[in-house]
Amino acid sequence: MKLPKFEPTEAILSGETADVYFPRTIEILRHESLDPVATMEVFTSRAGTLCGMEEVRALLARVLPEDNHEVWALAEGETMDRKEVVLRITAPYQSYGVYETAIVGILAHCSGWATAARECVEAARGIPVISFGARHVHPSVVGVMDYSAIVGGCAGCSSIAGGRLAGIEPSGTMPHALIIIMGDTAKATIAFDKYMPPEVPRVSLVDTFKDEAEESLLVAQALGDKLNGVRLDTPGERGSVTTDLVKEVRARLDMVGFTKVRIFVSGGLDLERIRHFIESGAPVDGLGVGSYISGAKPIDFTADLHEVEGKPIAKRGRIPGITPNPRLKRIM
Amino acid sequence: MKLPKFEPTEAILSGETADVYFPRTIEILRHESLDPVATMEVFTSRAGTLCGMEEVRALLARVLPEDNHEVWALAEGETMDRKEVVLRITAPYQSYGVYETAIVGILAHCSGWATAARECVEAARGIPVISFGARHVHPSVVGVMDYSAIVGGCAGCSSIAGGRLAGIEPSGTMPHALIIIMGDTAKATIAFDKYMPPEVPRVSLVDTFKDEAEESLLVAQALGDKLNGVRLDTPGERGSVTTDLVKEVRARLDMVGFTKVRIFVSGGLDLERIRHFIESGAPVDGLGVGSYISGAKPIDFTADLHEVEGKPIAKRGRIPGITPNPRLKRIM
Amino acid sequence: MKLPKFEPTEAILSGETADVYFPRTIEILRHESLDPVATMEVFTSRAGTLCGMEEVRALLARVLPEDNHEVWALAEGETMDRKEVVLRITAPYQSYGVYETAIVGILAHCSGWATAARECVEAARGIPVISFGARHVHPSVVGVMDYSAIVGGCAGCSSIAGGRLAGIEPSGTMPHALIIIMGDTAKATIAFDKYMPPEVPRVSLVDTFKDEAEESLLVAQALGDKLNGVRLDTPGERGSVTTDLVKEVRARLDMVGFTKVRIFVSGGLDLERIRHFIESGAPVDGLGVGSYISGAKPIDFTADLHEVEGKPIAKRGRIPGITPNPRLKRIM
Amino acid sequence: MKLPKFEPTEAILSGETADVYFPRTIEILRHESLDPVATMEVFTSRAGTLCGMEEVRALLARVLPEDNHEVWALAEGETMDRKEVVLRITAPYQSYGVYETAIVGILAHCSGWATAARECVEAARGIPVISFGARHVHPSVVGVMDYSAIVGGCAGCSSIAGGRLAGIEPSGTMPHALIIIMGDTAKATIAFDKYMPPEVPRVSLVDTFKDEAEESLLVAQALGDKLNGVRLDTPGERGSVTTDLVKEVRARLDMVGFTKVRIFVSGGLDLERIRHFIESGAPVDGLGVGSYISGAKPIDFTADLHEVEGKPIAKRGRIPGITPNPRLKRIM
Amino acid sequence: MKLPKFEPTEAILSGETADVYFPRTIEILRHESLDPVATMEVFTSRAGTLCGMEEVRALLARVLPEDNHEVWALAEGETMDRKEVVLRITAPYQSYGVYETAIVGILAHCSGWATAARECVEAARGIPVISFGARHVHPSVVGVMDYSAIVGGCAGCSSIAGGRLAGIEPSGTMPHALIIIMGDTAKATIAFDKYMPPEVPRVSLVDTFKDEAEESLLVAQALGDKLNGVRLDTPGERGSVTTDLVKEVRARLDMVGFTKVRIFVSGGLDLERIRHFIESGAPVDGLGVGSYISGAKPIDFTADLHEVEGKPIAKRGRIPGITPNPRLKRIM
Amino acid sequence: MKLPKFEPTEAILSGETADVYFPRTIEILRHESLDPVATMEVFTSRAGTLCGMEEVRALLARVLPEDNHEVWALAEGETMDRKEVVLRITAPYQSYGVYETAIVGILAHCSGWATAARECVEAARGIPVISFGARHVHPSVVGVMDYSAIVGGCAGCSSIAGGRLAGIEPSGTMPHALIIIMGDTAKATIAFDKYMPPEVPRVSLVDTFKDEAEESLLVAQALGDKLNGVRLDTPGERGSVTTDLVKEVRARLDMVGFTKVRIFVSGGLDLERIRHFIESGAPVDGLGVGSYISGAKPIDFTADLHEVEGKPIAKRGRIPGITPNPRLKRIM
Repeated sequence: MKLPKFEPTEAILSGETADVYFPRTIEILRHESLDPVATMEVFTSRAGTLCGMEEVRALLARVLPEDNHEVWALAEGETMDRKEVVLRITAPYQSYGVYETAIVGILAHCSGWATAARECVEAARGIPVISFGARHVHPSVVGVMDYSAIVGGCAGCSSIAGGRLAGIEPSGTMPHALIIIMGDTAKATIAFDKYMPPEVPRVSLVDTFKDEAEESLLVAQALGDKLNGVRLDTPGERGSVTTDLVKEVRARLDMVGFTKVRIFVSGGLDLERIRHFIESGAPVDGLGVGSYISGAKPIDFTADLHEVEGKPIAKRGRIPGITPNPRLKRIM
Repeated sequence: MKLPKFEPTEAILSGETADVYFPRTIEILRHESLDPVATMEVFTSRAGTLCGMEEVRALLARVLPEDNHEVWALAEGETMDRKEVVLRITAPYQSYGVYETAIVGILAHCSGWATAARECVEAARGIPVISFGARHVHPSVVGVMDYSAIVGGCAGCSSIAGGRLAGIEPSGTMPHALIIIMGDTAKATIAFDKYMPPEVPRVSLVDTFKDEAEESLLVAQALGDKLNGVRLDTPGERGSVTTDLVKEVRARLDMVGFTKVRIFVSGGLDLERIRHFIESGAPVDGLGVGSYISGAKPIDFTADLHEVEGKPIAKRGRIPGITPNPRLKRIM
Repeated sequence: MKLPKFEPTEAILSGETADVYFPRTIEILRHESLDPVATMEVFTSRAGTLCGMEEVRALLARVLPEDNHEVWALAEGETMDRKEVVLRITAPYQSYGVYETAIVGILAHCSGWATAARECVEAARGIPVISFGARHVHPSVVGVMDYSAIVGGCAGCSSIAGGRLAGIEPSGTMPHALIIIMGDTAKATIAFDKYMPPEVPRVSLVDTFKDEAEESLLVAQALGDKLNGVRLDTPGERGSVTTDLVKEVRARLDMVGFTKVRIFVSGGLDLERIRHFIESGAPVDGLGVGSYISGAKPIDFTADLHEVEGKPIAKRGRIPGITPNPRLKRIM
Repeated sequence: MKLPKFEPTEAILSGETADVYFPRTIEILRHESLDPVATMEVFTSRAGTLCGMEEVRALLARVLPEDNHEVWALAEGETMDRKEVVLRITAPYQSYGVYETAIVGILAHCSGWATAARECVEAARGIPVISFGARHVHPSVVGVMDYSAIVGGCAGCSSIAGGRLAGIEPSGTMPHALIIIMGDTAKATIAFDKYMPPEVPRVSLVDTFKDEAEESLLVAQALGDKLNGVRLDTPGERGSVTTDLVKEVRARLDMVGFTKVRIFVSGGLDLERIRHFIESGAPVDGLGVGSYISGAKPIDFTADLHEVEGKPIAKRGRIPGITPNPRLKRIM
Repeated sequence: MKLPKFEPTEAILSGETADVYFPRTIEILRHESLDPVATMEVFTSRAGTLCGMEEVRALLARVLPEDNHEVWALAEGETMDRKEVVLRITAPYQSYGVYETAIVGILAHCSGWATAARECVEAARGIPVISFGARHVHPSVVGVMDYSAIVGGCAGCSSIAGGRLAGIEPSGTMPHALIIIMGDTAKATIAFDKYMPPEVPRVSLVDTFKDEAEESLLVAQALGDKLNGVRLDTPGERGSVTTDLVKEVRARLDMVGFTKVRIFVSGGLDLERIRHFIESGAPVDGLGVGSYISGAKPIDFTADLHEVEGKPIAKRGRIPGITPNPRLKRIM
Repeated sequence: MKLPKFEPTEAILSGETADVYFPRTIEILRHESLDPVATMEVFTSRAGTLCGMEEVRALLARVLPEDNHEVWALAEGETMDRKEVVLRITAPYQSYGVYETAIVGILAHCSGWATAARECVEAARGIPVISFGARHVHPSVVGVMDYSAIVGGCAGCSSIAGGRLAGIEPSGTMPHALIIIMGDTAKATIAFDKYMPPEVPRVSLVDTFKDEAEESLLVAQALGDKLNGVRLDTPGERGSVTTDLVKEVRARLDMVGFTKVRIFVSGGLDLERIRHFIESGAPVDGLGVGSYISGAKPIDFTADLHEVEGKPIAKRGRIPGITPNPRLKRIM
């Protein structure tokens, strides 16, 4: 994956998204003519996968003075330990102090998503995981959420914005709405095949009107060799997708020769359910994960000043001076 | 609280934040010349406080055809039951189908925040709760997050963006960084008082260098009657703020006559800790809550078609036709 | 319900089903010419519904001497407390001693079934419960098992033997085997209707080949007003029957006018699942319970001598002499 | 152990113990002149020890047509996995369809007992386990229950019927009733010795009137070298048999030279208590287990048609066609 | 109960039992000529029954200066709340500072015992509880332990030292050793009756050689109307005393006319077992409690200076100045 | 550690601390002229560290007849198993019978303390543990309690009496009272240094008035190289001592060159907290443990006669005759 080029928004640069006490602090320091070179360290509250550092770098590149700065950090996607320092900025405080809220906020939210995604990917033991959670977060963060999921190891994502940031094509089959409006799953699948460009895989959603196994056979017969896969998304009202259902659909497809049609599963997948599918040996070809990733709790980060004008200092509860961490690389 | 005027962004209007299968669906329907009037219902996966409906309305106002539509909904901030329908849209499907991802995403994220905020507010039994979680979410949603917290009942928030949306002044004391750079809590408090406009309450942060009780007395003596309050934010490394600490600071302030100085508490507050403070009778005057609100899990919403051209229909697992809900009001 | 006429088998009367030490004891006593009038009391190890007493009475009627006996007991179907004496026999010991194993065995097994049945009936709060457990016990006890379930409050049972003992018609729809052999649910239902006598209710099993809701509509359309009900028996591999499925089938049947078709549910029902159906308000018209009743653990009973020739006596751990219990009635 | 010759009863052969819908199905199929060769597979709901297969074979031998059949099965006493197919019948459906209830009922009940017995035998690590549960089940199944316990590994059983089926002598000491009627344990033991044939082991029950240790010494002194063992059966009212009691009785017997008198324990033994006895090193020579074995929950079995006239078929939730299982042997 | 006259030992008065830093502190203060009037408050770490205050008062009476002192306290045996101040001493610090260890130690240990005793007494709902724990504590505290149990509500105690302090006769039956040496329970009981003064109740221990019920009848027959009671103390190796044993002994005694012989129970009694006896309705006439009382964890007390020379002061974590408690009475 | 010379008190020798039934037993035996040589064995109710045996030996040395006795025992401080015999006395019963209460009481209380101490010492993995619990027990047992803690492995104790028994100097820093009376921690530390003999380590208590880190630096600067250590004893009201606090104090001391100043921790330490400190790698130099050791539940011991005049005998529940234990050594 190629790292994207982030561009900080005007709202962030203007300080509008900051906690109000930061702009006030800068104002006071200006009145007092205080602008010492200060070293801020950022550490994490729990272990996980670091994400958001690229966006933070793009922000710092816009605000730090040209010469007088030094920034050390872990790289996007690296694992991090609890309480590990992941970022260290040394520069005149007035240049970056107002961005503390934005910096730790970006890291918190993105690392939360990436960490949850990696848990799913590890639980899936090689079966591709697709991020399907765009519908559970505010559209303003759909892009960074899906990008973070990709950083965490997902093989794809459903949103166009996420695909663009991550530099990949978004993935998706078809919604129930299409089938309901066309009134028939096979008909909708044929229309999909007719109008979609050839590079879009033909995957049909097979739980809308009839039994999943029955509908799988119907769309396979309708589309023949062009059918790439079926997606099972049985609602909780019908007991959700079970491992036995996957096995049965596989067997019934194979029996009539559709051994190449792949089976994708979605609907309420979390770590426990993913592990259950993997351990039961259900022949799944892909897993669509929604709110387990997109609703992951952000990982809180803390920022502290540890040196002012080269002198170790810290608030109570922290140890003054630079915290050694040989894993950090100088990035600016 | 006056409801804000939301303005959908270009990214949302263009469909870029949508799941890719929705733009594809619209494309297929256009090829098939299918644009039936369809009724979509949105229901929630768990009980809580509804938020985001104003932003959804602003979006629909931009995309629905002028005449041929009907929208029914619960109002911003209302409580909602598990599985209750909160929104019902009837209009030509091509006009709004591509926005399903955005609509349920806005409701999910905002309702998650508002619901968590209301839990805190109820646990606090009248003690004001301030949203301090801007630093734990991506800056792109800082504003809507703090706005949702206010909808849920918070008395204030720390971000400028959130304050603007909610139509209130943001709240904040001072960061540890100001005190560390000025090297002394009393000195920083005096500077704060000197340069801040008179309407900003003088609240000092008293756990940076010395024992909280000692530092409280020092800033009270430095600022005299002008001191509005102190904020206790003892880090976990020092055992966090305890109820006994609050009682002791209150007693020591009172002993020397500072009975009007208020005490604010922040740092790792969740429902259990808030209840503990309230039940122990600790004399707290305000509670700053961070990641319990900002990191609240979004409340998943589900959107389903229930009628097409006036005929009841639904996918398996749902009941065809309009779901009666007398609490809905027509909003468009 | 009219109490049945039980007839002890030759195997029981011959002592062949007894613990071997009882025939041996009788042999020793005969050699010693000891045949005192002895009083045996039988008490239960836990609370429940007494069942089997009619069968025990039939046995005693065959073996006790004509004059010299007295038998007191609780009645079939009465509730009993833990450690309560439910049966007291006074007669020459040689006449009944060898039947101790059979007497407590009958009471243990039958009371276990009746008690489990009553739990289900109480959990179902008025919805009829049918005993469907014949397939989970040895055919030698199918009859007494279903009879005990009826004593416990079940409205019906599936076995012919049970129905005969309880004096009712056995209940049943059709097996999956009929549908599979006929190859189509509607066809099987029509054949059922064609050949079954008019008093057998027309209830179709609707989960064999297609989605339950779909198949329900198909059989309703095929049989019209003659259809009495449908039975949902979704296997665990498909998530079992859910409360939402029942609601949806009800709604879809009602929508096309089949409001009189009843819905029966079976498959893995236990107390927890019965309560879940009742509390969720699912419109169920009957519940078929299998192994929760038929596999109920027998309730152990203990038999002790408390008087010999009118003198109180007892082994260690028991209190010598007659145990007062005003609830006992003289039955022989 | 030599396998017994089972003989199906008239009640089973007549279909009277069947679920009523099976006779009805046969009636419908006859009217429709449908009698296809069908393959039924039977699988188990949980792992355990298979039992009842001999009785099932005896039943099939009576009902299947002479030529047109094939039966594959696991053998009596084999272990089976969860969901493993243990029996496969291919024959004209009308010949065996009505016996589905009986076939799965026999396997369910017998396998439940055998599985519980094997658990006890394994927990006892070589100490013989005797089935003492006849008094906790209906006399109609006493024989098959004790037979199943022997299949599961028990060294003996108390019922005459069970002993006959398993081809062994039933085991037993003497009941409390004998001692109470004779009024003295030593006297009863002497009478037992006087009248019982020489092959019956002289085992005395030593908890009726006096302390167990005291009574053990009394019967040992009364019978001398002829005493084979004592049985401890202390009731729960006196704290049940403890491991220390066994050790003490052993020590007191040894002290006066009765080192060959064996000690048997019974009363409320389950897996936990058996393990406790074994792990504590209590010198037990035999364990009598009652309701843990006889009250074991039956293991549900499921029967499904998988082929009709050679064509794979199955209801929803099952996979059509023969399920491969190389462990099956052809038995008919 | 009349309060005893305590007399502090030389070891306490000399400071030898103190934490070494208190004598050192006094030495430093003497060198510095510092002897301010200081107020020390003592509070408890958990709720319970206060005990030891009389002994503390006796100590203070020996060491405080004649005039210049004031002592406020709760009374012996009063209930106290968690964190409640139970003692307040105002006097020149050098006069009492060295005794802090002794003061809080006396209160801690005695209140621990009294609190546990009261729990037993409350659980026993009117049945007398006797403290039998002397054998589980060091003989140096046997007296104060049993005294504290009496303060907590016990009706008696077994130690002579405890009886003396509490001003009552010690209670006791006879040890197993007497019976073993005399070789026979009845014989030992007759000897006891022969040599003991008439005011000692004749209570026999009935579990040494034979079954408890048997031995109870033997001693009752041996002593006739002179027998006051029997004590059941069945060891754990025999299943401990059960509620059914008590009922049976009662019944067997009553059957032969010994309705006035009382039944005392001991052996491993704790709150749970006491409640079990009471709730089961076992006819117990007295309960002997050992290590539940004598092994009770001491209740930690904390002593703090709150005023020095009339000025409020306190260490961090405490509130300076006198803590109001209207329940305190001036005792010196 | 050299074993101390214990001297039984008059109260013990006179039998005043005994259960009253022992003096009564001796009186009866004297009247009956019964004084057989009897063997008493003492065993423990749970595994642990044996302590008190030296004191028991001193008692027996005073009371046993010169010639006619034999005493076997485990040694002070040895580990013992559950139910292991730790002491066996053979002598005329009248000479020692009355001391049963004292013997088992001494062993119970002392072994309880020693066992808890050893648990702490093992949890501390080499970091010295000091017994600080004198303030939680009655002063009459302060000495034996601290002695037992030393036997269990503690490196020191705070009480003078405990130190004397164990033959070591008592340990201690200074109480909060000294600091409060002198009004300043540094001042108190200087006074301590001025007046204490040189062999007393200079350890200052640093949580009285200011933040612990701040106060540590103040006393280090005040006393310079003479400062041996600081003790952190943060009260629960301030969150107790945390591992991070220890790390921070260490870092801040090191930063200004006080690398030799040691850090001691006390306050509510139990096994869990000790392990937490050790596992977190906090640089602790000593741990002061209070009520976990001093409030340890005594380990009950049981004494039984097993031989009278050379003949095996025992009460029910025990095995007559000498219990073999090759670990016992003859000590008298």
